[in-house]
Amino acid sequence: MPETPFWTQDSLEDLVSARSKIMGAGVWAAARPDDRPVISFAGGLPDVPSLPSEELLRATRNVLERERREALQYGGTFGPHPLREAIAERSSVIEGIPLTDEHVIISSGAAHGIGIACEALLDPGDTALVESPTFPGSLRTIHSFGAEIEAIPMDDEGLRVDLVEETLKRLADEGRRAKLLYTIPTHQNPAGSTLPLARREKLLELAREHRVMLLEDDAYGELWFGDNPPPPSLFALSGGELAIRVLTFSKIIATGLRLGWNLAPPTLITRMAALRYDMGSSPYLGRTVAEMIRNGDLDRHVERLRGIYRRKLERLCAAIEEHCSDYVSYRLPEGGFFLWLGLRPGLSALEVQQVANEKGVLIGAGPHFFADSNVTQHLRVAFSYTPVEEIEEGVHRLGEALREVAANSAVK
Amino acid sequence: MPETPFWTQDSLEDLVSARSKIMGAGVWAAARPDDRPVISFAGGLPDVPSLPSEELLRATRNVLERERREALQYGGTFGPHPLREAIAERSSVIEGIPLTDEHVIISSGAAHGIGIACEALLDPGDTALVESPTFPGSLRTIHSFGAEIEAIPMDDEGLRVDLVEETLKRLADEGRRAKLLYTIPTHQNPAGSTLPLARREKLLELAREHRVMLLEDDAYGELWFGDNPPPPSLFALSGGELAIRVLTFSKIIATGLRLGWNLAPPTLITRMAALRYDMGSSPYLGRTVAEMIRNGDLDRHVERLRGIYRRKLERLCAAIEEHCSDYVSYRLPEGGFFLWLGLRPGLSALEVQQVANEKGVLIGAGPHFFADSNVTQHLRVAFSYTPVEEIEEGVHRLGEALREVAANSAVK
Repeated sequence: MPETPFWTQDSLEDLVSARSKIMGAGVWAAARPDDRPVISFAGGLPDVPSLPSEELLRATRNVLERERREALQYGGTFGPHPLREAIAERSSVIEGIPLTDEHVIISSGAAHGIGIACEALLDPGDTALVESPTFPGSLRTIHSFGAEIEAIPMDDEGLRVDLVEETLKRLADEGRRAKLLYTIPTHQNPAGSTLPLARREKLLELAREHRVMLLEDDAYGELWFGDNPPPPSLFALSGGELAIRVLTFSKIIATGLRLGWNLAPPTLITRMAALRYDMGSSPYLGRTVAEMIRNGDLDRHVERLRGIYRRKLERLCAAIEEHCSDYVSYRLPEGGFFLWLGLRPGLSALEVQQVANEKGVLIGAGPHFFADSNVTQHLRVAFSYTPVEEIEEGVHRLGEALREVAANSAVK
Repeated sequence: MPETPFWTQDSLEDLVSARSKIMGAGVWAAARPDDRPVISFAGGLPDVPSLPSEELLRATRNVLERERREALQYGGTFGPHPLREAIAERSSVIEGIPLTDEHVIISSGAAHGIGIACEALLDPGDTALVESPTFPGSLRTIHSFGAEIEAIPMDDEGLRVDLVEETLKRLADEGRRAKLLYTIPTHQNPAGSTLPLARREKLLELAREHRVMLLEDDAYGELWFGDNPPPPSLFALSGGELAIRVLTFSKIIATGLRLGWNLAPPTLITRMAALRYDMGSSPYLGRTVAEMIRNGDLDRHVERLRGIYRRKLERLCAAIEEHCSDYVSYRLPEGGFFLWLGLRPGLSALEVQQVANEKGVLIGAGPHFFADSNVTQHLRVAFSYTPVEEIEEGVHRLGEALREVAANSAVK
């Protein structure tokens, strides 16, 4: 190898695309497990012991026995057909509207599903509305296409749809429009909130009036803990018309598959497929998961996961009651992976995060999730990944961190 | 569902991105097996009976036993690390230069590898050089980013590097430059040619002088039939400096995996990773293939494939000698999936393709592979997929088609 590379990051600048110039050389990495002996509430990762490896292996064996030829050959840009059909059938029940394979494109996970939607819609200078706080990976994707992001605040019930209306009107007055609105209406990341039905209906009115595409990220929707599922999706409420609904097997099977799907009007499914240069997501993986849908393993697994995450959340809340109740408040999420803790006035989330880290417990700091500078002092506690027997000790350490930061804050 | 969809292809036009406007609603599909009882020489698809399903199942079982946690969780934007390491080690031997994981990004197949390279380099209005004829899927990808394509002719030995030089000089005189040059230097698709060493070295000189990135597609390079491997890659000859080298497990394991890799200078690997919004290719799949590399299954399989495809090519050539020799000529490829048949003057490739199709044999028509209107009258015969026992009959039918078209052409 030569001592001085021909293409350095500097000399590359006149070669690379505008999109590469926006992103530079900074690589996004999802939160990953820490190798230190710490207790982690940091990443939105699934429970490890329950990862369904036996079901996957059984499905793989069946697929290689029965559909070997099709599983090991190209499956087309829309994704493997048996998976699209299995999803359409299962989604018709979940969504409560009749869906066919034409409403489905297979993606390589929700992040990819959001990416292909942005790629089909956004040009540099376009405006995208996003609820704030939100998942930073999606902000990064929207930003990479050169779009201008308008942050819309949330409250305890989710997106402030009244402020969406104000913003859309202001944009219209300025002769501008929003191309899309990105929202996680159910078991929101990071806030845990679920948008009530009335707000969903109002949002759809606005989408229709202002011709805004709703980008409905729903990675956690199936993981609800109460007696009833969450309200119908924006996609379902609009009769499958006004939203691109982004879904994934990451949280209900495994993030390591990189497999998900978008539901959308067939016209938009086609547009997203037309832009793909990857010849579609893996038929080998896709047929394996289709087999898990057909043989009932997926539904059984989702039911099991609801119980696992419900129990983790209960354990977490009991521990918070014991160790942290003087410093935090929260609204109980109805599902998902996240508890969003509001800090007592005067406490800094970044400071608590750092002291907690020193005490051996990792948490998310609220300010990292905001799309603008209007941050609030919250902590995101992801309870999904933490082994159930470590939750109490983790919260105990968090309580110590809170006490320490509160004492220091009082002194200052 | 409403009778009239809210978002039609027409009403979408003011919502979608510039890239979506370029591509419209036309979806690319790779050539797939025909369900009719025909003999197909049409698609660049692997041999079916040898698809290594037992090896895949064994590797899957081992991965789920030994690396379950890592295989089923996020693996990062560069792709699963054990696969990057296994590829770096194996590629150091094949390329003959020392490589590390930093030279490797895992892709979702060669088409995806080409796509992420284009995404990192191309803006609307940029110029890309492509050898012609070439793989139409790559032309489509380059075109989708709004680049202007300059076609460079080939001869029996591959890309006319003298014409590359002329073109680069002309562009420089016009105050323009080419950002990239797309080439398949080894066992070219569709022409089967392999670029000689001297031309490779000249091409690298030009790339250095004109600061053009070489996009070296090598989906077929390992499948060589003689006593010696092909000349070193452009990437290797430049010390890993001047090319993005695109490789894939599609032709040496299975197209249905959607798994490949790019080799490139680490600065460029980082740029490609920074643009990915999909959180990287599947750790579950990647670790399965890493296991097949480590346990020797992949190398044994590639060796077996060389024999299978060599025998198919021999059978094909013998049959052509018997049935078609009055109408076609060719240069024997040294590897890969394709025989490129030049037609006797006066014969139209499209006409032969159509008549052959009617007689129950599918072939590729040369004109479909050109990047400009300077087409030649060739047929692309993909011998990889066709069952060996059908080759003779397929060529017999092709001979009948040639005779019929020749007779009609004489009459006209």
